[in-house]
Amino acid sequence: MIAAARGKIPADLVLTGGRVVNVFTGERERADVALVGDRIVGVGRYEGRESRGVGGGFVAPGLVDGHLHVESTMLTPAAFARAAVPRGTTAVVIDPHEIANAAGIDGLRWLLAGTQGLPLTFYVQVPSGVPSSRLETSGGRIDAPAVSRLLTRPQVLGLAEVMEYAGLLAGDAEVLRKLTASAGRVIDGHAPDLSGRDLNAYLAAGPASDHEVTAPAEAREKLRRGMTVMLRQSSVARDMRRLLPAIPPPARDRCLVVTDDLLPDDLLRRGHMDAVLRDAVRSRALGPVEALRMATLNAAHHFRLPRVGAVAPGWRADLVVVEDLRNFRARLVVHGGRVVAEDGRLTVPVREGLPPGPRLQRSVRLGRLPEDALRIPARNGRCRVIRVRADSILTDQVMLRPEVREGAVAADPERGYVRLAVLERHRASGRVGLGLIAGLGLRSGALATSVSHDAHNIVVAGVDERDMWAALREIQRLQGGLVAVREGRPLARLALPVAGLVTEEPLPRVAAQMDALTRAARRLGVQLPHPFLTLSFVTLAVIPHLKLTDRGLVDVDAGRIVPLWLDGQEGQP
Amino acid sequence: MIAAARGKIPADLVLTGGRVVNVFTGERERADVALVGDRIVGVGRYEGRESRGVGGGFVAPGLVDGHLHVESTMLTPAAFARAAVPRGTTAVVIDPHEIANAAGIDGLRWLLAGTQGLPLTFYVQVPSGVPSSRLETSGGRIDAPAVSRLLTRPQVLGLAEVMEYAGLLAGDAEVLRKLTASAGRVIDGHAPDLSGRDLNAYLAAGPASDHEVTAPAEAREKLRRGMTVMLRQSSVARDMRRLLPAIPPPARDRCLVVTDDLLPDDLLRRGHMDAVLRDAVRSRALGPVEALRMATLNAAHHFRLPRVGAVAPGWRADLVVVEDLRNFRARLVVHGGRVVAEDGRLTVPVREGLPPGPRLQRSVRLGRLPEDALRIPARNGRCRVIRVRADSILTDQVMLRPEVREGAVAADPERGYVRLAVLERHRASGRVGLGLIAGLGLRSGALATSVSHDAHNIVVAGVDERDMWAALREIQRLQGGLVAVREGRPLARLALPVAGLVTEEPLPRVAAQMDALTRAARRLGVQLPHPFLTLSFVTLAVIPHLKLTDRGLVDVDAGRIVPLWLDGQEGQP
Repeated sequence: MIAAARGKIPADLVLTGGRVVNVFTGERERADVALVGDRIVGVGRYEGRESRGVGGGFVAPGLVDGHLHVESTMLTPAAFARAAVPRGTTAVVIDPHEIANAAGIDGLRWLLAGTQGLPLTFYVQVPSGVPSSRLETSGGRIDAPAVSRLLTRPQVLGLAEVMEYAGLLAGDAEVLRKLTASAGRVIDGHAPDLSGRDLNAYLAAGPASDHEVTAPAEAREKLRRGMTVMLRQSSVARDMRRLLPAIPPPARDRCLVVTDDLLPDDLLRRGHMDAVLRDAVRSRALGPVEALRMATLNAAHHFRLPRVGAVAPGWRADLVVVEDLRNFRARLVVHGGRVVAEDGRLTVPVREGLPPGPRLQRSVRLGRLPEDALRIPARNGRCRVIRVRADSILTDQVMLRPEVREGAVAADPERGYVRLAVLERHRASGRVGLGLIAGLGLRSGALATSVSHDAHNIVVAGVDERDMWAALREIQRLQGGLVAVREGRPLARLALPVAGLVTEEPLPRVAAQMDALTRAARRLGVQLPHPFLTLSFVTLAVIPHLKLTDRGLVDVDAGRIVPLWLDGQEGQP
Repeated sequence: MIAAARGKIPADLVLTGGRVVNVFTGERERADVALVGDRIVGVGRYEGRESRGVGGGFVAPGLVDGHLHVESTMLTPAAFARAAVPRGTTAVVIDPHEIANAAGIDGLRWLLAGTQGLPLTFYVQVPSGVPSSRLETSGGRIDAPAVSRLLTRPQVLGLAEVMEYAGLLAGDAEVLRKLTASAGRVIDGHAPDLSGRDLNAYLAAGPASDHEVTAPAEAREKLRRGMTVMLRQSSVARDMRRLLPAIPPPARDRCLVVTDDLLPDDLLRRGHMDAVLRDAVRSRALGPVEALRMATLNAAHHFRLPRVGAVAPGWRADLVVVEDLRNFRARLVVHGGRVVAEDGRLTVPVREGLPPGPRLQRSVRLGRLPEDALRIPARNGRCRVIRVRADSILTDQVMLRPEVREGAVAADPERGYVRLAVLERHRASGRVGLGLIAGLGLRSGALATSVSHDAHNIVVAGVDERDMWAALREIQRLQGGLVAVREGRPLARLALPVAGLVTEEPLPRVAAQMDALTRAARRLGVQLPHPFLTLSFVTLAVIPHLKLTDRGLVDVDAGRIVPLWLDGQEGQP
């Protein structure tokens, strides 16, 4: 490396004639970039054993996604890499908490094994909330001793988003044990709307970042209190563009851009971090190199990854060449010193990991359900109804007097609400949570999914019970997946046979099936941008305000199960 | 901590009514700061078991000196803490390479033991250059296995300034072994004037910072290549103010301010990092909070010290309260949650460590020297002469035909040069390097010191041999120290009986003796700002351009011993 850097021997690979983008100084500089092994050894004039002219393109550090649940793409790590690498992504920090919640350590092992040997570096944060709530039934458990064990793995950086802020603030022993086990490591946070003294308390306990910031004032307070703010641009929660203008310039180096949850069609059509960068630059809140820094150096800083995220000697040779920094599109991608993609195509083989074991492939265990399992006996009074929002994973509680038919609560698409059920699927307990959902727009049929944050029980929303049952049968037949049903028959489906979350199919096929599902949902009346993603978050009992799990309706702010009926007893529908 | 942060129980200590200085956002905010144990738990409205009104003062993070050779102050760690803590310093990153060069692992052990239990955190970088050059004889050796062992100590962060860039560039095996032993840790650099491909090669090998930057263009190149630039404001090399305006704003977070080498009188009269901050603000190149950030958060970032260097919940409770951010003077200092100084006075006891062992106290071993040991036989021709600079530790080579008296080379104060000798003092080898020094200004008498970077042999400069011998005898009698002699008698002296570098006396006494020495040097004609410090660097064979060690004249750029006479043979005077 020293001899090659000095020009005494040729480098392994030299990118010649490009303009090097300097995330330290903000400059662009005409220079060659010389690589030896997985390292950059020089920026200047160089010759190499192999040399690639980049014809005036910008040579930038490879993109880093600092917070991603890869399971949200429904792809295996290899299939994700096939899609993201040609877009310029060279590293991701994943929190595999979906598969951990659905399939525990078994699921985690399979996922991490699948990240090895890929042209994309997978760093891992240990899921901190498995189960994420005592108010739902999960398929896995990662307790404090398991956190300690996982932290010793080489690709593991620290503890992933600590979602149970209510438990933390109350001094919950298990939450504190996990934080203690992670002391000295990077602990990521998850604290929507937390402010003032409660925010102070949360930070004092260890978490150092937040990707759940939605309001400009919230971003400023969290930066002021020392948090790294991860500006999220996920398929559903597009907070980044709103927040960028609110970041005080001195605090820009404390911000990253992240995707969190990406839908397959979004990944296929818009891209990954390249799309986020294009969005960031379009916001006009900051220059393209400042935006790039939030997708490279700042992420490496937060995760204390030395010598990652810049084009400089001694730094990791993860690079992306683009023609235009404002319309960021990868022309050439280098990972660990190796050209891995060019003109949107991979140039190296990307191999799948081991196949999932039988336990991961038989993960929908609904047990025997009585035929009235979905029925909500009518009462006189008003119900708590979950109202979903189109552009957020937060929900609101609305109160209404429901339609009654044959002694049972019925959907009323005219008034904008339909039936909702969450069925426990890990332990065949037969446990079912029942409720109503408004704002979905469903006018006929049913939608069901085995993807439902974070425990990934089966969620089904429908206008009538027959279609709801048909959707559930189809999910069970597929052993996980997404389905849209009308008049008892599936209109569209996507099988997710690995833990009910992931398919081994390639992205274009998955995206096509997702498209068909979205079209089917549209035909059933749902006009939300991402019908199934919205549905998959109605169970997430750590995001305000009203959610439904297999255990019943959850008032997230109060941290407890509440009855469906306003005058009802707790713990009963 | 959680309960106190939430205001449910009182904090241990609350600083009330101050304006919190936010190094993340650049803001100032009226708020209390609540502490529990050694942590900040809240910024907001708080009550504590103990509470201290700070009456509108600015509550800032405690100051961090990212690069300091504490031995340069001639003080023990405890005596240094007594001086620096009331100035607002709460952490220092020391490179104890002076005592390591003079007294090896024994010296290092004594120094590190003395850093324990003080109201000042001492982080340590393992000295990388012991000996710092094969061209001089040192009193200690820290080889690669010793580096590995020292890296396991808890207060040790990484490898200190890698000075031997010539060896590194040449692929010297021992240098590379030390770098390999430190892989993954913070490796500090030392690469004056290094540029282009050689700089690339240096960085590719591991070093990540430089405090030897003197020119604006050099600062920009080093920042561009990913180095942390430590803007030095030492007693002699005052580079910071010159460099500050040259730092591109996006790269300011990659800069720290450091003191490197501080003379005792400077520490007593001007201060420590507080003085550096006052200087930085006076430069008008950046605002007071930006300057403060370079003395707090940026230092912690570089050394990967999580949650150090800012006033935020969960961060270390190292704080300093000042009245005026532009004229930074500590009113109250908190270290690890405890008030340790107030109004310039310590409020806690500061205890000395163990006394040094007999080996450290008997460190001047000159051996038997023949009476012509200092004599330079005359020849016909010109000599290489070291010319010192008033404001830098760099030297220049000048050529002149020396005065000859009684067959030997003589000083000629009229022509501006005097005699110079460096005597090996660790192994009693009797080895003596002889030369001439210009620019010192000495017109009569002699100056001698056992402080001479980095091997700390005895340097003596004089107009005639009688005074040079008298000075050497006095140094030997004191077992280390500084002395000014005229007509065979000491005019002033400072004993440094610990390894010939350090005294156990308190700072005011040391500074008074240094003053007396400087006055004596002035009487002898020396008008340089710091006569003895300048003298102590004429031996440093890793700083360009011409130096003198016990082995002879060193052409630093060529990396070899050169003869005194221009037509001479190598290895001979």
